[in-house]
Amino acid sequence: MIIQTNSQQFAARVQNVPASFIREILKVATDPNIVSFAGGLPSPALFPAEALGESAKRVFSKMGGQALQYSSTEGYLPLREYIAERYRRRFKLNISAEQILITNGSQQAVDLIGKIFIDPGDNVMLERPSYLGALQCFSMFQPVFKEVNLEHDGIDTAELEDLLNETSVKLFYCIPNFQNPTGVQYSLEKRKMAALILRRHRTIVIEDDPYGEITFDKHHMPPLYSFYPEKTIMLGSFSKIIAPGLRLGWMVANREIIKKATVMKQASDLQSGNLSQYILYDFLQNNSLDRHVENLITAYKEKRTTMMGCLQNYFPESVKFTRSRGGMFTWLTLPEGNTARELLQAALKEKIIFVPGDSFYASDPDYRTLRLNYSNVDEPVMRAAMYKLSRLII
Amino acid sequence: MIIQTNSQQFAARVQNVPASFIREILKVATDPNIVSFAGGLPSPALFPAEALGESAKRVFSKMGGQALQYSSTEGYLPLREYIAERYRRRFKLNISAEQILITNGSQQAVDLIGKIFIDPGDNVMLERPSYLGALQCFSMFQPVFKEVNLEHDGIDTAELEDLLNETSVKLFYCIPNFQNPTGVQYSLEKRKMAALILRRHRTIVIEDDPYGEITFDKHHMPPLYSFYPEKTIMLGSFSKIIAPGLRLGWMVANREIIKKATVMKQASDLQSGNLSQYILYDFLQNNSLDRHVENLITAYKEKRTTMMGCLQNYFPESVKFTRSRGGMFTWLTLPEGNTARELLQAALKEKIIFVPGDSFYASDPDYRTLRLNYSNVDEPVMRAAMYKLSRLII
Repeated sequence: MIIQTNSQQFAARVQNVPASFIREILKVATDPNIVSFAGGLPSPALFPAEALGESAKRVFSKMGGQALQYSSTEGYLPLREYIAERYRRRFKLNISAEQILITNGSQQAVDLIGKIFIDPGDNVMLERPSYLGALQCFSMFQPVFKEVNLEHDGIDTAELEDLLNETSVKLFYCIPNFQNPTGVQYSLEKRKMAALILRRHRTIVIEDDPYGEITFDKHHMPPLYSFYPEKTIMLGSFSKIIAPGLRLGWMVANREIIKKATVMKQASDLQSGNLSQYILYDFLQNNSLDRHVENLITAYKEKRTTMMGCLQNYFPESVKFTRSRGGMFTWLTLPEGNTARELLQAALKEKIIFVPGDSFYASDPDYRTLRLNYSNVDEPVMRAAMYKLSRLII
Repeated sequence: MIIQTNSQQFAARVQNVPASFIREILKVATDPNIVSFAGGLPSPALFPAEALGESAKRVFSKMGGQALQYSSTEGYLPLREYIAERYRRRFKLNISAEQILITNGSQQAVDLIGKIFIDPGDNVMLERPSYLGALQCFSMFQPVFKEVNLEHDGIDTAELEDLLNETSVKLFYCIPNFQNPTGVQYSLEKRKMAALILRRHRTIVIEDDPYGEITFDKHHMPPLYSFYPEKTIMLGSFSKIIAPGLRLGWMVANREIIKKATVMKQASDLQSGNLSQYILYDFLQNNSLDRHVENLITAYKEKRTTMMGCLQNYFPESVKFTRSRGGMFTWLTLPEGNTARELLQAALKEKIIFVPGDSFYASDPDYRTLRLNYSNVDEPVMRAAMYKLSRLII
């Protein structure tokens, strides 16, 4: 039987949501011989699988009934307290558990914020380029995107100011630490300046921070939140520092926003997985997250250094790239005459993949850009693949 | 510091979403001495905690890396194949894994469907009364609700036909098996008739079926889907038959709808928890779900019978109730002069809670109705509490 649906019955918002080119690439990339600089996958070799397994065992033996039952939409209270305490310790931030909502990774937090704040036609401001998942998610709420250029040390604050003077912006989404896709980290000055400007315009800020813990030089920058707590919503995730398969992240905001977000979360999926939350919390109680993160940093830093070495040594000088000081990505701008999509076609023949940069722009994409992920490729393989890739540049 | 947010900055859709009165009650009900007929909690004593614990152990030792990593938005393929196979076996339905999307319980499926289909102002048709979680979820998309009365054997099909002739309806949400809140099951005739009418009007149907497996009389009715597969979206959940803490459900639909829903799911939270999916699939491979469901049926049937006995023996004849043949709920209509909210006030003093029925109506609520859940109360306790409750009726 051929099943046909009348496409017109889909809602208007559906027309606006682009499928993720990255996810499409990842689907193609099931060939185990492919070297993938695409995706943002953490290295599975670094997952604390054994310790999480021990935690699962304890949870099932001690509190299986509770962990398997429904619970509150807000999330497991001890886990929220742990997160609050970590902010206190890392940045002397005074955040209470009531200001934290557990979400399915930080992606869901973006969705909930969209639901709470964005009316069709609202201006939503993004870094240029920005995280594709956020672009995709916001698109569902039919906003008008405004972009502010990202420089090597954060957004162009003059442009930010001009834009905010010129038009009313509902919210600004940013990733100040090791941005996806560019790897850029905001300097302290840019953080202060941006917060000042945004505060003056009373703009809601979404500070997405999945990579901040993975800082290679031990120089942890205070979040934008610390300069503008009234209207900054800070997102965090355990996907990059523990494991994505737990599907757990969180949102920090003032109580009024958290209350609204909780109602939205309840309507969206009742709550995040209770079992995952219990396993994660047990892990955090019985293991040092600091030590685990140290191991991640050591491993990713080495991979970063290898990739930077390859870019320096193999690639023509005309290729510009981010000297990433944390996170999982670097960002290339190819010389005139190249496009990243053409490079990808050629690279695919060599069984190498990456993500062309154009999908990360809300408008007027730069087709010469591309994103390279270094967290999930072993070093000899990386060297060989990077060499091959460099030869494909015109 | 006092943190204040300008409420006007919230989106228009936020104004429409009612907080769940049930969840609010559940929050109050932390006193362990409270007897709760509120909520829809499965009995934790019936969770297969030990077997799931064994599954977790196997998953961590054999495939921890995979289970902890990101994976496809569609969900774990073997799990989707298992679900498809179960439909084949139970109802001879020919459903492929490509027609199945794994979601965070069926609640998220309702959200994704809202996102895909509902434009502000669209007519969304509900049973009267209907599941509060669906009401809440749809509200976010600013539809106009239309209600069709529920009778003892399913919706009033004459009313359904009149309504569809009168106005254009985007979608119809229903729970044909042991509905939440009423416990009503559609008869075979009503299923066929409803499908015929809905098909004639090309109305999209959401057939939510979290309770269908828990049929006390072994008489499993074919789903509406089997009479109208083109535009019926069937939702299922592991929350009631295995455990809510896994937070896993699914959506069955034609490929075009699943494709759109997958893009929406990706934008909403990338994917459901991979670890949960692996643990669940291992459980399903190593245990008989049929046998487990048999145990649930035996236990819940006994509880149902006890509750029906109490209603029959303790309550005045003027109290009407559903003789539930499956699921977890019965639905009472109190005699004139009572309201369920007043009854709840009195019951709270006796440390008994339930959900007044008014929250389950999209409009013009019947204040004499209430929902009783029998799945999570032990029998001697149930008897005592039901007796007390009966004495409170005027």
